[in-house]
Amino acid sequence: MAADGGGEPDHLAGERATAQFDVDGMKVAWAGSRHAVEVADRMARLVASDPVFRKDTRTMLSRKELFKDTLKKAAHAWKRIVELRLTEEEANLLRLYVDQPGYVDLHWGMFVPAIKGQGTEEQQKKWLPMAYKFQIIGCYAQTELGHGSNVQGLETTATFDPSTDEFVMHSPTLTSSKWWPGGLGKASTHAVVYARLITEGKDYGIHGFIVQLRSLDDHSPLPGVTLGDIGGKFGSGAYNSMDNGVLRFDHVRIPRDQMLMRLSQVTREGKYVHSDVPKQLLYGTMVYVRQTIVADASKALSRAVCIAVRYSAIRKQFGSQDGGPETQVLNYKTQQSRLFPLLASAYAYRFVGQWLKWLYTDVNQKLEAKDYSTLPEAHACTAGLKSVTTSATADAIEECRKLCGGHGYLNSSGLPELFAVYVPACTYEGDNVVLLLQVARFLMKTVSQVAAGKQPVGTIAYMGNIQHLMQCKSAVNTAEDWLNPAAIKEVFEARALRMAVNCAQNISKAPSQEEGFSELSPDLLEAAVAHVQLIIVTKFIEKLQEDIPGPGVKEQLQKLCSIYALHLLHKHLGDFLSTGCVTARQGALANELLGKLYAQVRPNAVALVDAFDYTDHYLGSVLGRYDGDVYPALYEEAWKDPLNETVVPDGYQEHLRPLLKQQLKLSRL
Amino acid sequence: MAADGGGEPDHLAGERATAQFDVDGMKVAWAGSRHAVEVADRMARLVASDPVFRKDTRTMLSRKELFKDTLKKAAHAWKRIVELRLTEEEANLLRLYVDQPGYVDLHWGMFVPAIKGQGTEEQQKKWLPMAYKFQIIGCYAQTELGHGSNVQGLETTATFDPSTDEFVMHSPTLTSSKWWPGGLGKASTHAVVYARLITEGKDYGIHGFIVQLRSLDDHSPLPGVTLGDIGGKFGSGAYNSMDNGVLRFDHVRIPRDQMLMRLSQVTREGKYVHSDVPKQLLYGTMVYVRQTIVADASKALSRAVCIAVRYSAIRKQFGSQDGGPETQVLNYKTQQSRLFPLLASAYAYRFVGQWLKWLYTDVNQKLEAKDYSTLPEAHACTAGLKSVTTSATADAIEECRKLCGGHGYLNSSGLPELFAVYVPACTYEGDNVVLLLQVARFLMKTVSQVAAGKQPVGTIAYMGNIQHLMQCKSAVNTAEDWLNPAAIKEVFEARALRMAVNCAQNISKAPSQEEGFSELSPDLLEAAVAHVQLIIVTKFIEKLQEDIPGPGVKEQLQKLCSIYALHLLHKHLGDFLSTGCVTARQGALANELLGKLYAQVRPNAVALVDAFDYTDHYLGSVLGRYDGDVYPALYEEAWKDPLNETVVPDGYQEHLRPLLKQQLKLSRL
Ligand SMILES: Cc1cc2nc3c(=O)[nH]c(=O)nc-3n(C[C@H](O)[C@H](O)[C@H](O)COP(=O)(O)OP(=O)(O)OC[C@H]3O[C@@H](n4cnc5c(N)ncnc54)[C@H](O)[C@@H]3O)c2cc1C
Ligand SMILES: Cc1cc2nc3c(=O)[nH]c(=O)nc-3n(C[C@H](O)[C@H](O)[C@H](O)COP(=O)(O)OP(=O)(O)OC[C@H]3O[C@@H](n4cnc5c(N)ncnc54)[C@H](O)[C@@H]3O)c2cc1C
Ligand SMILES: [Ca+2]
Repeated sequence: MAADGGGEPDHLAGERATAQFDVDGMKVAWAGSRHAVEVADRMARLVASDPVFRKDTRTMLSRKELFKDTLKKAAHAWKRIVELRLTEEEANLLRLYVDQPGYVDLHWGMFVPAIKGQGTEEQQKKWLPMAYKFQIIGCYAQTELGHGSNVQGLETTATFDPSTDEFVMHSPTLTSSKWWPGGLGKASTHAVVYARLITEGKDYGIHGFIVQLRSLDDHSPLPGVTLGDIGGKFGSGAYNSMDNGVLRFDHVRIPRDQMLMRLSQVTREGKYVHSDVPKQLLYGTMVYVRQTIVADASKALSRAVCIAVRYSAIRKQFGSQDGGPETQVLNYKTQQSRLFPLLASAYAYRFVGQWLKWLYTDVNQKLEAKDYSTLPEAHACTAGLKSVTTSATADAIEECRKLCGGHGYLNSSGLPELFAVYVPACTYEGDNVVLLLQVARFLMKTVSQVAAGKQPVGTIAYMGNIQHLMQCKSAVNTAEDWLNPAAIKEVFEARALRMAVNCAQNISKAPSQEEGFSELSPDLLEAAVAHVQLIIVTKFIEKLQEDIPGPGVKEQLQKLCSIYALHLLHKHLGDFLSTGCVTARQGALANELLGKLYAQVRPNAVALVDAFDYTDHYLGSVLGRYDGDVYPALYEEAWKDPLNETVVPDGYQEHLRPLLKQQLKLSRL
Repeated sequence: MAADGGGEPDHLAGERATAQFDVDGMKVAWAGSRHAVEVADRMARLVASDPVFRKDTRTMLSRKELFKDTLKKAAHAWKRIVELRLTEEEANLLRLYVDQPGYVDLHWGMFVPAIKGQGTEEQQKKWLPMAYKFQIIGCYAQTELGHGSNVQGLETTATFDPSTDEFVMHSPTLTSSKWWPGGLGKASTHAVVYARLITEGKDYGIHGFIVQLRSLDDHSPLPGVTLGDIGGKFGSGAYNSMDNGVLRFDHVRIPRDQMLMRLSQVTREGKYVHSDVPKQLLYGTMVYVRQTIVADASKALSRAVCIAVRYSAIRKQFGSQDGGPETQVLNYKTQQSRLFPLLASAYAYRFVGQWLKWLYTDVNQKLEAKDYSTLPEAHACTAGLKSVTTSATADAIEECRKLCGGHGYLNSSGLPELFAVYVPACTYEGDNVVLLLQVARFLMKTVSQVAAGKQPVGTIAYMGNIQHLMQCKSAVNTAEDWLNPAAIKEVFEARALRMAVNCAQNISKAPSQEEGFSELSPDLLEAAVAHVQLIIVTKFIEKLQEDIPGPGVKEQLQKLCSIYALHLLHKHLGDFLSTGCVTARQGALANELLGKLYAQVRPNAVALVDAFDYTDHYLGSVLGRYDGDVYPALYEEAWKDPLNETVVPDGYQEHLRPLLKQQLKLSRL
């Protein structure tokens, strides 16, 4: 697909002709199945061909216009979903390709799952049908002005009043104002609000409540409810289509049965009681949400890489010495060494994301069987993957922008908006540093369990191999030896384990475990990253053990897997050397092999990004056009700027002419 | 200064009380002299107190409003400069604190210097007085749609026509359109245009020409001249205040004497002749421009760090185990390990910038004395410093934004705009990778000269010490040994030299020097970075050998210098280990010392950013407020968003109500 044009010449045809693998086969590997390719393709075309979903002037809209445009697109998307009787899978893809953050994301992504996960069956029966039909619009109101990461510090109160059988929602301080929830500012009629539950004079900590915020008649805020948008955010367009909001309660009353009561209840008399449902059930939702975030990372990264690869194949700069044609910048080794690891990362994240989908079903099955033993591992693993993939993706998008030189700085390149809309993924659903510290805690716990003879499972199982991993020496002796997945896995395992063990030993020297953990926390972050990188590398290697059809497809993925692992080895060489996992010479061999792999990927680069199967609409970039016809498109886009409505600018008479004519009215002092 | 409020409580007073040094003394060290502090302070207050220079709603303006606002501010600034008879130093500072990119930047920063550097005395006499009085507004039109880095590839032609004694300026292709010049789109009346000079049928390559673009009567483009803005750029506000422009010529004629003729001329008959002025004279301008870019890096970085440090001292998240007050996030070791190296970098860049000012006068003196021997070294050094400081600053601003958690994503934090306006510094005035490759070429040349027994000078002099540096082993044996500047310098020199020598050896194995250079270019980038980091470390150490008055001032700077160097050692540990400059144990000791230094800097952190002496106006951040009263300010800013003009949003009737009321008009298919 993707080729939007008809008989137009394809400026990248030469690049496509050099591919050494079957692009259709790669599409299947990327999407997960032939069916997934087909549905994605159909939904992408549906969106791209519908004028309501145009987004080419989005960065020029005022905040109000942009928000209105988002309401329009959301309603239109829903209309199409209903009219075409789309399946849930199709509807999700349609929303993905509409590619404009809005209240529906929180409605489906947070409000509905919160009720499903934390509501009783009765509550689900009452609220979900309304939500499914959009009779109500819901958001997820947790964060406050004063507290984000530390959820236990939230200040909003929900005080039970037995005289009326109601909770009184209240914002006792300025810092207790709800702040950030998407969809809250203008669109939502309801919210799941997190507040301190107080009954019988006792504070039972944070619980969720379904609260109606706006009238269903005229959308005005209910009495005692103050609502607003929290203001402009990073970038033009980008996340400004979302009404992240502020909410204050002045003693707002809700019926008792709007407390989400699956895990605990307040009785008619005001007694707080725990149900027998185990807390761990909430983990399922968390694994689900993080899995979507990792999947989103591979999407955002692959978009950026697609733009940078295609443009680098078009862009020429500097000639051969003898005045021949100029060199495509994609031929420069520096351009390759910056770009191809990002291409490899896009594939790596895609596959670890596919594995996380499997993990989610696995966790759910275990939960149903009341087997909670693997939950801490699943928690640490998903927290770490969320953190590492989103941080790396944010950096990578900006690197792709720089790889496009000056033109990458134009909104028409699509990259500024992609960056601005993506970066909050590093912060929401858990600040990335806070998450890594959780991973580190889990690692420290595992190290001490291993020392006590316990055999760890899942992604941490390698730690059971401590005897070998603490003293092994890599047998790599030639650059090509690094092509062996076992060689890669061994050094990544050894590095991760040794860093964790080092930290544990240093912590044990501190006066207390807590002090030690805090002092060592910068090192613990690095150990956590090493562990997570190992997971990603391992899952890529495991993917390659599957049957992957299509001529040349697996071979290309093997190269990308090697690039992914070896660029990390090179980037974190200090880790590998200081823990004695590799020698300086082995490090140099890895680097040498990287150079060779870049050369091998070069003729396949454009085809490898074609396999993402993105439409020009979804890419939203004049530089990333499928047909490579970049320059006329850049030129045309420029003239759309409102500043070009007149050739002599507004302000000339007042502010330029007097200056040029030496007629500024001066007040000599 | 900076404290804008009157008797308001200072929420950071406690932090300021713990400082162990004289903040006024530090202000002098930062600004360069007591005089510099005083002037900067006066100009900053002048701008901050003038309502025309308000910028708090800048990110909410439409492109047209923003551009008009920029014209207004520029005219008003000029009015104040004339009225108050400001000196050049004062005027430059005033423009700095106005803090809004606009045509004046290019007029003063590129157009005037180009005429000064490349114009004959006659040409200077004719054009400069008009420019100085703003009778004309000029820009610098070099880059084209198709060519940026490769200036020799520009396509615009200037063909001499002896029949009329004129040059004919022409844009033969779409890609030859001038593209990017700031001030070109809407404001400039003139430009220095770079074009291929063609005379007597021969192409003499790229030369500069002064070209009038617009009528001085009504500002309309002259016949044959197409002008426009190239469209929206990264971010809201940010660089969108600038009219980066597109320019096409359709056979536009200019008098012959508007070719910039200092270095070469075309005679009345059309003969191309070189003057006896040596080409190297152009280097002076280049060193000047790059020096200002390094100075700008320290400004942008220090602003971001100031915001992040102050907010991290206010922001609390998570409590002590026993329910006591929550912890300031600045107390977390991870926050410190991410933030304090950036604080140290701000100081490091400031001092290397001050040294570059000296280098500029030194280069000029040598040029006048016709001593061109040190020019290649000055060229490589400034290219490298431009590249390394701007890349690191761009990354650092984004890290500071992340250090502020969710609130850093709001425009009111100031950080999104600071990032968006700053990042093009990595691209303009030389793409950072292209510049590093130039440094690398110089390094390779120096290595071979050293091998031939030549003694290198200036920042590369250390390479003369090759005997020692190739085999020395660091004597560091305790963490505190790393406090010794000589110990630091030795390992940084050894690392830089060994990486360069490694590259040179690997290149020599290639079939040709060119092929080798190209194959090795990713490694060469790393070698170049190592060399430039050494320069910055060395200049910081040299600064500390000066007399620095004020109790405790030098002690603080010594700590920051150690942090700057050791965080680099830790970050690039792979370089140091693989070249055998330090052992794994020495690396661990450096890391241990870093942790101790962070703890020592902690009580001084807020005072160290106060020493930048920035007004709240210049910072433009509710999170970075001098008084730390963050939350009411965040709250108030939110309500200014246009989306909050109505409580029920525009679009409700059309797009929300029909959805909620199940009244979307469906067309069943
Ligand atoms: C675009 C966007 C959308 C959002 N949508 C929603 C939504 O729909 N609903 C909702 O409820 N919320 C939402 N949020 C809020 C988001 O969940 C929080 O911003 C996030 O949890 C981070 O918390 P914080 O902002 O308080 O950061 P902070 O925790 O204040 O972080 C500040 C700094 O402190 C550091 N830090 C904090 N704690 C520790 C620690 N223990 N150890 C070491 N360092 C620490 C962090 O690493 C960071 O560097 C959204 C935020 C954004 C930006
Ligand atoms: C905000 C802004 C303001 C500007 N203002 C002006 C102005 O006032 N006047 C003006 O004339 N211009 C201006 N420019 C243009 C600017 O000077 C160019 O963008 C810059 O020189 C980079 O060139 P490019 O855009 O062609 O990048 P390219 O050279 O096309 O870079 C694309 C990629 O190719 C790589 N690359 C290029 N050559 C090589 C090589 N030999 N080896 C390895 N890699 C290579 C780069 O590293 C980059 O990754 C401005 C640009 C911006 C963004
Ligand atoms: Ca905007």
